Amino acid sequence: MSQVLREHAFGMLTAGMFTRAVARECNGQKHPFTEVIKANIGDSHAMGQKPITFLRQVVALCSFPELLNSPSFPEDAKQRARRILQGCGGQSLGSYSASQGVDCIRQDVAVYIEQRDKGVPADWDNIYLTTGASDGIVSILKMLVSGQGRSRSGVMIPIPQYPLYSAAISELEAVQINYYLDEDNCWALDINELHRAYQAAKEHCHPRVICIINPGNPTGQVQSRKCIEDVLHFAYEENLFVMSDEVYQDNVYSPDLQFHSFKKVLYEMGPEYFNTVELASFHSTSKGYSGECGFRGGYMEVLNLDLEVKAQLVKLLSVRLCPPVSGQAAMDVIVNPPLPHEPSYLQFHKEKSAVLGALAEKAQVTEQTLNTVPGIKCNPVQGAMYAFPRIFIPPRAVEEAKSLGMSPDMMYCLRLLEETGICLVPGSGFGQREGTYHFRMTILPTTEKLKVLLEKLRDFHIKFLKEYASLEEPKR
Amino acid sequence: MSQVLREHAFGMLTAGMFTRAVARECNGQKHPFTEVIKANIGDSHAMGQKPITFLRQVVALCSFPELLNSPSFPEDAKQRARRILQGCGGQSLGSYSASQGVDCIRQDVAVYIEQRDKGVPADWDNIYLTTGASDGIVSILKMLVSGQGRSRSGVMIPIPQYPLYSAAISELEAVQINYYLDEDNCWALDINELHRAYQAAKEHCHPRVICIINPGNPTGQVQSRKCIEDVLHFAYEENLFVMSDEVYQDNVYSPDLQFHSFKKVLYEMGPEYFNTVELASFHSTSKGYSGECGFRGGYMEVLNLDLEVKAQLVKLLSVRLCPPVSGQAAMDVIVNPPLPHEPSYLQFHKEKSAVLGALAEKAQVTEQTLNTVPGIKCNPVQGAMYAFPRIFIPPRAVEEAKSLGMSPDMMYCLRLLEETGICLVPGSGFGQREGTYHFRMTILPTTEKLKVLLEKLRDFHIKFLKEYASLEEPKR
Repeated sequence: MSQVLREHAFGMLTAGMFTRAVARECNGQKHPFTEVIKANIGDSHAMGQKPITFLRQVVALCSFPELLNSPSFPEDAKQRARRILQGCGGQSLGSYSASQGVDCIRQDVAVYIEQRDKGVPADWDNIYLTTGASDGIVSILKMLVSGQGRSRSGVMIPIPQYPLYSAAISELEAVQINYYLDEDNCWALDINELHRAYQAAKEHCHPRVICIINPGNPTGQVQSRKCIEDVLHFAYEENLFVMSDEVYQDNVYSPDLQFHSFKKVLYEMGPEYFNTVELASFHSTSKGYSGECGFRGGYMEVLNLDLEVKAQLVKLLSVRLCPPVSGQAAMDVIVNPPLPHEPSYLQFHKEKSAVLGALAEKAQVTEQTLNTVPGIKCNPVQGAMYAFPRIFIPPRAVEEAKSLGMSPDMMYCLRLLEETGICLVPGSGFGQREGTYHFRMTILPTTEKLKVLLEKLRDFHIKFLKEYASLEEPKR
Repeated sequence: MSQVLREHAFGMLTAGMFTRAVARECNGQKHPFTEVIKANIGDSHAMGQKPITFLRQVVALCSFPELLNSPSFPEDAKQRARRILQGCGGQSLGSYSASQGVDCIRQDVAVYIEQRDKGVPADWDNIYLTTGASDGIVSILKMLVSGQGRSRSGVMIPIPQYPLYSAAISELEAVQINYYLDEDNCWALDINELHRAYQAAKEHCHPRVICIINPGNPTGQVQSRKCIEDVLHFAYEENLFVMSDEVYQDNVYSPDLQFHSFKKVLYEMGPEYFNTVELASFHSTSKGYSGECGFRGGYMEVLNLDLEVKAQLVKLLSVRLCPPVSGQAAMDVIVNPPLPHEPSYLQFHKEKSAVLGALAEKAQVTEQTLNTVPGIKCNPVQGAMYAFPRIFIPPRAVEEAKSLGMSPDMMYCLRLLEETGICLVPGSGFGQREGTYHFRMTILPTTEKLKVLLEKLRDFHIKFLKEYASLEEPKR
């Protein structure tokens, strides 16, 4: 097996490097496929999604303000750009912003949150613009676990989880506390499992934080309001800091489900909760309908942060000076899109609906097709951008993988990649219950390509099952 | 004294926050000034410097590729933009790049370095694009000190230094090893002082890294070729990793001085050095003539990195996914500016020369004016963007500051800010020899404003000296 494919599967290579390397290899060595189909990273534009015109118009206007005189740009885009530039030192994207972000953009974020949450008050003093959501997540974790003595702070994370969390926890030398999502129940968060994990962890560390990803990555579930309330009640009782990763808040596909923000639910639980539970929630330009990963835009909102901790946070953030200002501008458009009476509204609305409509369709196609394959079982993709199906791996394949020193789903994904050119991520990278195997695939390829992918995957899986079922007992 | 001013002086507030807060205060409370003049941060555009047209054209074209059809953009800007977009997934700035950065931009950086260093070979595999230079500096430090056991790794840094270094070292729980620059010799790096610091530190830690800032921040000196050779020889002998912060490489004002890159000097010392000394050098979009801080663009070049360490670095960088792609595009323009035969050359050259010419003039005005003030002594501002003059603070003022629990130069700067609206940074934030006092001021205000600043500063200083000289002995 080639080094490039291997390294990639082990997460050592990223998007561009991988494509280049595989292309190089395809020229040199022979692979039994002509095209690599990447369904491993939530990288919408790389998979062919087009940018939202209005967002890019605003960023271009901010970048080159001479365009404000151009008749080919709509007035609402110009108005957004002028406002952002007025918030920048020297009216330039090239100035450092405050490390919390440009004031007027933070104000727009607060207004957006109030509207999203049907009037729950949002104070822009609690809004921090970030370099993507990851930056905010790592900063908050850093602050909390250093504040409490590194070796003793425990952080509760879902399993499966987006590996940013486990990586950050390990780097900060905090204790990772796993709570397992309920695969048999559409990956729902089970409050009893939270209690179990908490009680077990209390023996050897000081649980301080609980992280939730809603809608889920890699699991695609959308949390119910009741479940969020349970989690918040639990956090209140146990005095846990709640980190709610809500970067997929616009990505809900099941018509009977709805995104509820942790903050809104907390508010509705009454002032005893709303004024005490420490909460940080995260959003980003990278997902949703815009898919602007490269701009590294994002924000976080914090609630009930201790004043001293807040001062520490500002200090911590000031070391990286400021988040990229063009990413801040992109974030502004997402929280402050064209209104119905504005000239760009129709086109914006059309583009947004097209992206979200296509994703909803692909979510369904993916789930349905995967469930026709013997030995694959896929929960509904209710939200986010991923399916995380369970795959049956025959015992002989499991043994072979073990003898090769790799996890069985890793071997599965590597073989899939080598034989079909389809690039997925093994479930073991996200965590899974002992003895179960999964992969994560994005629903981002175009519908056409996605169908090809699913067909190839089905054929591969059936062949894989056959191969390992028909093998004789290895000679001893 | 107001909380805002205090907090700012203590480094708790950053650019935008400060301006807003002071404006608010100016409305409410009464200050004996009508305008705050900020000379505390190297934030060119905020101080009125205009963006380089060509750079912004390329970024705008990349952001909104429809503009590639517009006749109002020059062909060379379009060609740059097309090339960058071809290097992006889905030809969009909105895709994640590889965590090392967009390939073709890294190639352009390598070509730039080869030209800058008169043919010394540069391999683009050694180039990493970063989120400003800070990101690269922190990443390299993180990798090195964790690789060697945190509590034992020592990092040699100049004093005075840009406080990013001390902050990162402290956060990583490494040992800070101070080597003092020679103020009496234009802040030159003294090789004997390096030996002294190293020998003393060896007693209690394992010195692993030496950091150099050239041209100097906050000290503005430009290092001689001979001195660089001495440092590299020292690093070779003592097996130290060299981190050379060269973000001011375009900011050299003394006509008889020249920037020498550490890499070029290392090359000229012969293969025994060039193939063994571990080196990382850093550059950025934020300084030079472009002053594009907000884009958070930068790169680093590494040499002789252990392969395993390199793999670790890639892993570390992949956690932050990728540097902002529009910052990468800005970096590309800086390393790949218009050539003499291209349509944008004349305007680009004119704008670049105007910025650098004005800075050179202001460097001279600052030094000369400060040296006319009794009790202030300023070395020539040979490069970078700062003066770091030594100020005489009368013993009675020193005592008063101590009784207030603050450093004397902090008290000085706070009073300056309160009485004149001039915002500087106390030398104690950068480190200085015991019993000496300094401040750092940028040379970034417009020439006109800079002259006002220097005049007000002179008046303040004279008044300050008088006040503390004429005080009676405090009653006991």
